[in-house]
Parts: sequence; C-alpha cells; structure tokens
Amino acid sequence: MILTVTANPALDVSYRVDRLRPGHTHRIGAVFERAGGKGFNVSRVLHDQGIPTRALGPVGGILGDSLRADLLDAGLPHDLLPVAAATRMTIAVVADEATMFNEPGGPLSALDWSRLQDLVGSYLPRTEVLVCSGSLPLDAPDSSYADFVSLAAAHGVPTVVDVGGAPLRAAAEAGVAIVKPNAEELAAAVGEGDPLTGARQLHSLGAGAVVVSLGPDGLLAVTADGEWRATLPQPVVGNPTGAGDAAVAALADGLRRDLPWPDRLRLAVTWAGAAVAAPVAGSVDPDVLTELHDQVTITAL
Amino acid sequence: MILTVTANPALDVSYRVDRLRPGHTHRIGAVFERAGGKGFNVSRVLHDQGIPTRALGPVGGILGDSLRADLLDAGLPHDLLPVAAATRMTIAVVADEATMFNEPGGPLSALDWSRLQDLVGSYLPRTEVLVCSGSLPLDAPDSSYADFVSLAAAHGVPTVVDVGGAPLRAAAEAGVAIVKPNAEELAAAVGEGDPLTGARQLHSLGAGAVVVSLGPDGLLAVTADGEWRATLPQPVVGNPTGAGDAAVAALADGLRRDLPWPDRLRLAVTWAGAAVAAPVAGSVDPDVLTELHDQVTITAL
Repeated sequence: MILTVTANPALDVSYRVDRLRPGHTHRIGAVFERAGGKGFNVSRVLHDQGIPTRALGPVGGILGDSLRADLLDAGLPHDLLPVAAATRMTIAVVADEATMFNEPGGPLSALDWSRLQDLVGSYLPRTEVLVCSGSLPLDAPDSSYADFVSLAAAHGVPTVVDVGGAPLRAAAEAGVAIVKPNAEELAAAVGEGDPLTGARQLHSLGAGAVVVSLGPDGLLAVTADGEWRATLPQPVVGNPTGAGDAAVAALADGLRRDLPWPDRLRLAVTWAGAAVAAPVAGSVDPDVLTELHDQVTITAL
Repeated sequence: MILTVTANPALDVSYRVDRLRPGHTHRIGAVFERAGGKGFNVSRVLHDQGIPTRALGPVGGILGDSLRADLLDAGLPHDLLPVAAATRMTIAVVADEATMFNEPGGPLSALDWSRLQDLVGSYLPRTEVLVCSGSLPLDAPDSSYADFVSLAAAHGVPTVVDVGGAPLRAAAEAGVAIVKPNAEELAAAVGEGDPLTGARQLHSLGAGAVVVSLGPDGLLAVTADGEWRATLPQPVVGNPTGAGDAAVAALADGLRRDLPWPDRLRLAVTWAGAAVAAPVAGSVDPDVLTELHDQVTITAL
C-alpha cells in the first residue's frame, strides 16, 4: 500500500473564462470544486490504476467538510485528521492558460503535527512507500516532511517527497528515497539554477534519487545507479496541472515494485503525459497511457 | 425602518496581490471574507448612520452559514431565509485595480420565491422604504424585483431598486419609486447608450425617478420634479466598490424623510464619495462625509 500525506490540503475551485482581463468583472458560468492537494492527486492516480493507496491529511472548517465529502464521493480511501485551522481554498481561473490564486493554509499547532505523526505511524506497518507531497501550511517547520521521512525509515519504509525550498533540502538531509522537485523548487533548495548541477548537489546531501520535472522537456534523474534524461518526442497538449503528481505516483509505484530506474522513468513520463491529456488533475487518460509508453526516450547522461 | 432585500447574496472573498499576472500562480497572504450582496451593503451604511434597517435574503449551504455568522458578528439586523441552493462566492483580486470573479448563484425554486415574498410581506407593515438590490440568481424571472415593488405598493410602501437589464425595466413598468442603475445597467434595460436619454425612457416607462450613477462623474437624476446632475469638484480616491450601495442608502433615506430632490442627490453623492474613501464596501468615512457635503454641485438640466 502506498500512503500519501498532504500537509496543506485545499478545496480547489475552478472558473472557466473566455479571457482573463485584469481590472474587469468576470461573470462565471459553472463552478467546479474538488478536494485538492498534491498527495490526494497522487492517491487518485494510484487508485485509478488499481494500486492500493490511502490519503492522509489535516482538514478543518467548512471547506474541510467539503473536501471530506468530495473524497467520499470519489471513493478514495482516506483518513483525515480534524484540526482547528480552516482548510484553505485555491482558485484556478482557466482561459487558454490557468491563473492560480493559492491561499496560504492555516497553521497547524505542535499538537496537530504530533497527532498527524501518530496517524501516519499507525499506517506504516502496512505501508510499502510513503509519499509526502505539496506545500506546507503557514509557519510549519522546514523539517515537517523530513520528520515523516525519519519516522517511516524507523519502520523500514522508504519515502518520496514532492516539495520545494528548505523543506526539500531538509528531506534530502534526512535520507529521503526519492525527491521530485520541479526546476524552480530545486533551485530554491540548493541555490543553483542548472537542474543537473542542482540535482547532483541535492543527491550528495543525502537524497537517494533526485528526479527533476522539466515540464514539456520531461524528467532528469540523478540516482545512485546512474543519471538519465527521459523525454517524449513532442509535448502532450492539455492541462499540465497534476502532471507532476502523476509522475510522483509512478515513481512511488516503481519504488514499491523495485523496478530498474529506466523503467521507473518511462512509467513516470508516461503517466505525467497521460495526466496532461486528461481534463482534470489526479486522473490519467488510459488510451494515452498505452500510446505514450513506447514513445519515451531514456538517455543516460 | 428601511428593509433591504438581496436576492442573490454572496460570500465576498478578497485577495491582495502586488500585480495580477495572467497565466501565473499567485501565493496569497491574508484572506479577507465578508457577507456580500448589495442589499447587505445598503443596510450596513444605514446601520452605521443610525438609521433603522433590516437585511433580508436567501442563504444556503456552507457559505450561507459563513455569511450568517458575518452578519451576526457585524450586529446588523437581518432575517435570512434558508434555501436549498448553496450561497455563491465572489472573488476580488485586488492590486492597483480590482479584478472580480462572480459566481452566478444557485437558482431559487418557485416555493423559495414565494417564501421570500412572505418574509418580506411580514415586515412591510413596519417598513417605510423597501430596497431591492443586486443581481438575481440563475434562472430567476425578470419580474422578481417588480413583484416585490407591487407587493410593497399594496402596503403603501415605496421601493428603490438597484439592478440592471430586463429586471430593471420590469421594475420601472411596475411603478417603482426610484431606480439607481449605472450607465451600463441602464443601457442593457432600454437599449440606449446615452444616460440622459435612457433615464428619460425608463422614467416614461413608469419609474418615479431614475438616478444613474456615473462613477467619478457623479449622479444624473430624471424625476417628476425635475432633472439634475450632482457632482463633486474632483473624484474621491479610493475603492469604488460599494459606492453605488451608499448612494442607494442615501436615496432610500431621502425618500423616507421626503427630502427635496436636490437634497437627496447631495446626500447620495456625499455618501457615495465617503464610501470610496472607506477601505471596505458597505461603510462610509464620517470625516469625509462632513468634508464632502458642502462640495457637491447640483445643476438643473
């Protein structure tokens, strides 16, 4: 079973507009809401693929109730921790491109963090891979995900972390199995703009493998077994939101099955591409999966 | 007592950003939420001025609970009708200028409309002026506010309506005492771009008086007693959201006190200007009130 932790869930609200015009009033037609948070998206992808998973995270307030209801509707296995801080909202205004407004997320108390640790700990004996994904709430310690890495390691469970900046660096130093930052998140962690150099730095800090998502340019991986680029011949057209989460889901599944690295990267690029082709984050298009799988090029660096 | 009806309330959410950049992700610092809807703002202004008022409207869902809580916190007298449709949200992204995203608002059933009529009717024996303000929910009949005008008239109560398009036209045809459209709402009602010509048309359709808000250019009034422009020597700097609602509050108070039209217009321009100077919609700055009052120029047309 792959356990996911989303430290800073959100109710994701989407508005479709013809064009975003700063300074104007936009009358919205349909409103689309769903439980948001990168770990939830990872679990959705795994669940869709028939891979056992459970999604954990703190929720509070009235939007927390909506989030819980959405996970129930989706039939996604979950265990949400009630906390005092109200669950935040993100707004996506979607025209040709998406414009995002991300609320910060209320702070968790030290007791909340300790209860979340206990909740994660209670599942670790049944867990093959732990995934910690997405931003941290306001005022969270940089070590928040690193602490889960250590907790999981004490149970012999490897962890995949998808976050940026100082919390990413802390996870690497805690000996995380795999990190999956994008280029910007990586640069914020190591202060190095070149993805390959930055990935090598993060690897040398203690991360078992560093997989950098480069959007339409695919993935770059620095691992103990070697270094690779994984690319598609042409970018997939669609909605890139959730592509990184699909890649994380694939990396977690590849880790669980102990696949060779080139196979893990092929899977990750395939799932990410299929997620771009799917209309909403957290789902992958099965027809596209089959089509893309043979198109991935893996190049040793 | 001035009774206000907001047919399509909203929870108003504000995000402050340095700059709105389409296609980018904006991390929001503080989130500001309040009960929104033009009739609520009218009641807030009246309540601030010590004028007895009560705010009515339908609310539903979890955002409806937030809205009710905000009115309770504000100490604003209200009577909200629970309905099945979830209360909508509006998002204001505020940089140098405000960019608005207005959800449409869930439809009210025929039974809801009938219950709202009954609720309004129960207050009419104690009401001096009825105010119907703001957009109608999805699929509402164009006659929705006109029906309140007729209901109030049967109790000898005059009505002020602030809405645009076909519902504005219907209110005029029902013999509304005063309408307060902006230029765009007026044009949508009569198909005439010139505000003075359009106001005369709406007046001839049956509206007792037509007061058109022209933003920094003040007010234009076509009434049975005469036609006037009311202006300030220079525009007030600040947030124009809620200025129209302050003008409506002043017009309702002037109607209640049977003030001569020039005095009503002076009051309306003063309150609207003070609302622009105040940081949030539905409040007016008392120092600015005093300062502006003597600066208003009333010109007979």
